[in-house]
Amino acid sequence: MKKAVILLSGGLDSATVLAIAQAEGRACYALSFRYGQRHAAELAAASHIASALGAVQHLTLDLPLGSWGGSALTDNLEVPKDRSAQDLSAEIPITYVPARNTVFLSLALAWAEVLRATEIWIGVNALDYSGYPDCRPEFIKAFEEVARLGTRTGVEQSESIVIRAPLQFMSKADIIRAGLRLGVDFSWTHSCYDPPAPELHCGRCDACLLRKKGFDEAGVPDPTQYAE
Amino acid sequence: MKKAVILLSGGLDSATVLAIAQAEGRACYALSFRYGQRHAAELAAASHIASALGAVQHLTLDLPLGSWGGSALTDNLEVPKDRSAQDLSAEIPITYVPARNTVFLSLALAWAEVLRATEIWIGVNALDYSGYPDCRPEFIKAFEEVARLGTRTGVEQSESIVIRAPLQFMSKADIIRAGLRLGVDFSWTHSCYDPPAPELHCGRCDACLLRKKGFDEAGVPDPTQYAE
Repeated sequence: MKKAVILLSGGLDSATVLAIAQAEGRACYALSFRYGQRHAAELAAASHIASALGAVQHLTLDLPLGSWGGSALTDNLEVPKDRSAQDLSAEIPITYVPARNTVFLSLALAWAEVLRATEIWIGVNALDYSGYPDCRPEFIKAFEEVARLGTRTGVEQSESIVIRAPLQFMSKADIIRAGLRLGVDFSWTHSCYDPPAPELHCGRCDACLLRKKGFDEAGVPDPTQYAE
Repeated sequence: MKKAVILLSGGLDSATVLAIAQAEGRACYALSFRYGQRHAAELAAASHIASALGAVQHLTLDLPLGSWGGSALTDNLEVPKDRSAQDLSAEIPITYVPARNTVFLSLALAWAEVLRATEIWIGVNALDYSGYPDCRPEFIKAFEEVARLGTRTGVEQSESIVIRAPLQFMSKADIIRAGLRLGVDFSWTHSCYDPPAPELHCGRCDACLLRKKGFDEAGVPDPTQYAE
C-alpha cells in the first residue's frame, strides 16, 4: 500500500483531496498547521475530516508564520469582504500568506521522507481560487523538482516523491460533486477566513464567496451555516 | 541598501556567509532554527555571531522537525565518529535531516517576502561537505525557481528573490581564509554534531573532522576546544 502525506487545511478542497487519495488506495498521513491563522476553526474541522475519512495518522504542527505577519490571515489587517468575481481575479489579495504553500510542502516533504511515502497530495486549484501565486501549476511543478533534488529518496531510490494536485484544473462545483460522490460531508469542512463564531462562516470573505458559488453551480444543497 | 535574509546555523560556514553579505553592503536579517537538534549549542553561537557581525535583526524560530525523527541529529540515533574521507563521500549519512534545507529556505522565503528582501543567503557547500542532497548546486537552483514562481514578489515585481550560495564551490580551507579576512573570529562558531559539553567540540564527528581538516589545510591556528 503506497503511503501518501496529505496536506489537510480543514477546508472543502483538501477534504476532497483526502477522499480521492483514500479512494485510490493510499495509506494517508494527514498534516495540518497551526500557523497563526485567525480562522483556527479549520483545525478542528481537519481533525474531524481525518478521522471520518480514515487517515492512518493526523498531525497538527505549530509553525511560526505569525512571527512576521504580512497577511490578513496572520496579522491585524482586515479580511476583504463582498469582492466581485472581477476583484477576485485582478490581483493577489491581502489574504495571501507569504510563501505558505512552499512552507507547508517543505514540511510535508520532510515527513514523507521519514515515512518513506512517495506522494504528497495538495488541494491547490487554479480555476476557482483566490489568485495566490503558490497555487499555480508551474509552482507545483517547480516544487516537485525541489523534492526530487533535495532528498535522500530522490538520490538513492529510483522513485522520488511526487506532488499530486488532483483539483488543479477542476471548478469548485466539480470539486464539490467529486467530494460528495466519495462520501465527504461538507458540513465537516470550514472555509471562512474570518468566522464570526467557530461554527459560523461569515458568508462575505473570498473563501465564503467561492464556497457559495461552488454549491450553487453544483446544484446541490449547501450545508454551511453562514452569518449573512 | 538591499535587504537579505541570511540562514545562520552558528557554524563556520554560515558565519562566513553573513560576513560576506555584510561586506557586500547588505542589510542582513539573520534566521536560525530550534528544530530539535541535539547540538543546540550552535544557537547561542548564532546569536553571538549575528550581533558581532552587525545583523539588523536575528530571529530564532521553533520548528517541529523533531516530530518525526529520521536523523541522528533529531533522534536517539548515534552520531557516527571517526569516519574516513572515503566514508564521508560514500553515501548520505544518518546525520542528514530529511528535507532540512528545503524547510529552512521556505521559511527564509516567507520572511524575505514580508521584508521585501531580494536575496536569501545560505552556506551550502558542495566540496568539503557531508554528502547531503540538499547542499547540491542543482537543488539550490531548483529552489530558486520555487522562490520565483511561488511568491507575490516573483509575480508582481520584475525582481524575484534569488538564492546566494557563495561558498558552494569553495574548500573548507578557502572558507576559513575568507572568513578571517572579513573579521570572523571562528572561536564564536560551533560545528560539532554531538558536543560533550556546550563549549566543547567532540573532535570526532563528521562536522568536527571537516572543521579540523579545514584549519589544517588553511595553515591557520584552530581556535576550537576539542574534547579529543
